[in-house]
Amino acid sequence: MDEKRNLELQELDYETLQEQRTDELSELLESREMKKLQLKMEELNEFDVAEFLTEIRDKRMPMVFRLLSKEKAAEVFSHLEPPEQERIINSITDSELAGIVEEMYVDDAVDMMEELPANVVKRVMRTATPETRAIINQYLHYPENSAGSIMTSEFVDLKKYMSVKESFARIRRIGEDKETIYVCFVTDAARKLEGVVTVKDLLLADPDTEVGELMDRNVVFATTTEDQESVSEKISDYDLLAIPVVDKEGRLVGLVTVDDIIDVMEQETTEDIEKMAGMMPSDKPYSRTGILEIWKNRVPWLLFLMISATFTSVILTHFEDMLAVQAALVAFIPMLMGTGGNSGAQASTAVIRSLSLGDTEPKDVLPVMWKELRVAFLCGLTLSAVNFVKMLLLDGMLLGNDEITIAVAATVSISILFIVMFAKVVGSMLPIAAEKIGVDPAVMANPLISTLTDAVSLLIYIHIARIILHI
Amino acid sequence: MDEKRNLELQELDYETLQEQRTDELSELLESREMKKLQLKMEELNEFDVAEFLTEIRDKRMPMVFRLLSKEKAAEVFSHLEPPEQERIINSITDSELAGIVEEMYVDDAVDMMEELPANVVKRVMRTATPETRAIINQYLHYPENSAGSIMTSEFVDLKKYMSVKESFARIRRIGEDKETIYVCFVTDAARKLEGVVTVKDLLLADPDTEVGELMDRNVVFATTTEDQESVSEKISDYDLLAIPVVDKEGRLVGLVTVDDIIDVMEQETTEDIEKMAGMMPSDKPYSRTGILEIWKNRVPWLLFLMISATFTSVILTHFEDMLAVQAALVAFIPMLMGTGGNSGAQASTAVIRSLSLGDTEPKDVLPVMWKELRVAFLCGLTLSAVNFVKMLLLDGMLLGNDEITIAVAATVSISILFIVMFAKVVGSMLPIAAEKIGVDPAVMANPLISTLTDAVSLLIYIHIARIILHI
Repeated sequence: MDEKRNLELQELDYETLQEQRTDELSELLESREMKKLQLKMEELNEFDVAEFLTEIRDKRMPMVFRLLSKEKAAEVFSHLEPPEQERIINSITDSELAGIVEEMYVDDAVDMMEELPANVVKRVMRTATPETRAIINQYLHYPENSAGSIMTSEFVDLKKYMSVKESFARIRRIGEDKETIYVCFVTDAARKLEGVVTVKDLLLADPDTEVGELMDRNVVFATTTEDQESVSEKISDYDLLAIPVVDKEGRLVGLVTVDDIIDVMEQETTEDIEKMAGMMPSDKPYSRTGILEIWKNRVPWLLFLMISATFTSVILTHFEDMLAVQAALVAFIPMLMGTGGNSGAQASTAVIRSLSLGDTEPKDVLPVMWKELRVAFLCGLTLSAVNFVKMLLLDGMLLGNDEITIAVAATVSISILFIVMFAKVVGSMLPIAAEKIGVDPAVMANPLISTLTDAVSLLIYIHIARIILHI
Repeated sequence: MDEKRNLELQELDYETLQEQRTDELSELLESREMKKLQLKMEELNEFDVAEFLTEIRDKRMPMVFRLLSKEKAAEVFSHLEPPEQERIINSITDSELAGIVEEMYVDDAVDMMEELPANVVKRVMRTATPETRAIINQYLHYPENSAGSIMTSEFVDLKKYMSVKESFARIRRIGEDKETIYVCFVTDAARKLEGVVTVKDLLLADPDTEVGELMDRNVVFATTTEDQESVSEKISDYDLLAIPVVDKEGRLVGLVTVDDIIDVMEQETTEDIEKMAGMMPSDKPYSRTGILEIWKNRVPWLLFLMISATFTSVILTHFEDMLAVQAALVAFIPMLMGTGGNSGAQASTAVIRSLSLGDTEPKDVLPVMWKELRVAFLCGLTLSAVNFVKMLLLDGMLLGNDEITIAVAATVSISILFIVMFAKVVGSMLPIAAEKIGVDPAVMANPLISTLTDAVSLLIYIHIARIILHI
């Protein structure tokens, strides 16, 4: 057996191994060898079992789930998506459900509650023990996306006067169900956080040393109402495995582990990306968001931007007669607006991302402007030169548009330079301004910048046309 | 002292505490109390010390750095950005430099080498011991962004026949300098990976149990040439603290820890966001990227999109005469193109993000299309209705544009419906098509979709105008 596995390791990557295992499970299910299926699932990682269950689309799924042992069942359940969780809840008994909820980490249970339909939540709460119900209720009351809402209360706490030996005894006694045992928190009699000690510190120390001597008093901590994004930054900056969460009185109430933070980072990034594309952020994955909800997230910005485009219409109407004299000019309006929008979006995206990573700060407004001015000049000059040649050769000679004179090509090309410079400076400054007044810079992205640059690009173009073409 | 700290904890959050500490350090520096400064810095977290050093902009910075103990110096150094690292390297002796490099984790040293200028790298390599130099060279040869390039070789390896007691003895002996001791890998005589055992398993087991009985044979592993994004997905999916990296022969060569993966996630997200805004991805933060490099990253897409806009110009030129008959129509072209671009960008952004999170897969092409069609119909209908009323009331009556007849308003409004439907379907389908043919879906975002929808929006508008206005 070992020989065979080594041979496999030698030739395969993990993905292929995992696929083989899932295929094996599917075959066992098809041939109804339930006993073997049960044994195989017990051996596998809970994430792989969850993936396998998700792939069983018919009503055998809850049945297969019920083959799992109590501990495995809770772990696998935490890895399932809400629709699968719901299907399972609807087909197991109250006592099975209670068993799973008791075995789950509180933060996973709370996550689940936040996503399940109300009637399912009611049933889950009814079957839970009063203690679990009380804890879950408490967690559900922390503000959404706060440290309190993502923390877990399953931590190991030690006292200053404990020896290393006593600490290990305590970890062995209570460690089994804790989300992490590697970071232990030291609290005083009033449960106030005094320090942190890692299992590494304990392992490398003499068994008789007291925790008080080993612990680091300089604890990086979060407060229950702190935003999850700030918690995630601390874990990432300080390379922590877990961060303690304290209440207003400085009492230790929970911890957030690094794996929770990975989910938070994905969620926050999705929100940023959605805002940058002119959507309201949604808290559900795309595949599980309904039509009406998507419509509600998308239509407000579309409406706002559509109505804002009235400026551009008014400008165009105002200069209608002038543009009629040089009809060739109209054909390049979309290209100029597009170039302005794209240039601005590049600058705003770069600055928004840099702000969100803490690489740029609002006080860097002048260096950023100076940088973007120079980049814009280079980009504008390149585009301008290429466009001049392109208009004369491609539009003028190849496509045979005899309205394209050197003066018209010059008008469009010079406009490009100014439009790119305007768009890049505005695109880089608006996010910084937003951050300064406490608005999320992500909303200053592409859609808003384009609408703004559309109108200004047009004005630049018309004024340059007046100067060069004397119209 | 303890009383005071508790009092602080009671009233303050971590940010305020940290600021106070940094202020204290600055005051000590200003009053040249170097001995006190040294002691204070030793107490602080290495990330906070690095932040403090970064804020000293003058030549005292390297001097303050030299106050740190050897171990602290290496840790702080890993947390500094390349410009600060370079300043320090240029002002310390060869033996000090050698000391730091020996103390650093290999992955941090390799990260640093990849970012420093060639002459500085040369000096670092010259001062390192031959062994360190050999390891760093080996790591620098792994493909960029591969598991090999981000792993570290500082892991704890155990053997199957070791008892728990012996394992702890080994961890105590070699654990001090390891990046993690909590996940230990079990290898055979040929260094092939056989299993994984955690310190938690070891702590909760009987001291005489053999590692072979405790270890999990189902190891989730990565290979040296595997892309870092896939490594990061495994760590996140399986909630791992560390993942072993094996070579082609299945031999254990390193491990990647969860804190490395957080940096990878940030970097990959930045790349995605940059691609979505029509930029080449850069591997340096915005604040440290030079003008010419930014220009090189931005100008290719701008050029490509500018030249692609020729389609729109040609269409406009072709229908010049027709548009001249109904001059009012021209004023709404930018709004229609903007609405098409924004609608398409919303759909493409949602699908790109969903693909990148593994929530949508290329095989979901039909459900996605059906979903976007319905969303597009709802959004299109809303915009269309609002626009009809807006054109008659705002543009027609309030702004007194008497060219806006009911027929013109109807033409624009009906066009909106079709444009939004086209944009959303194309916006959602292009990323899936890209993923299918192995191109990064992120490049199918906003800029490309807008250019495409610009041309099609115009054609839709012109054809609807012909039907309704009989021109």
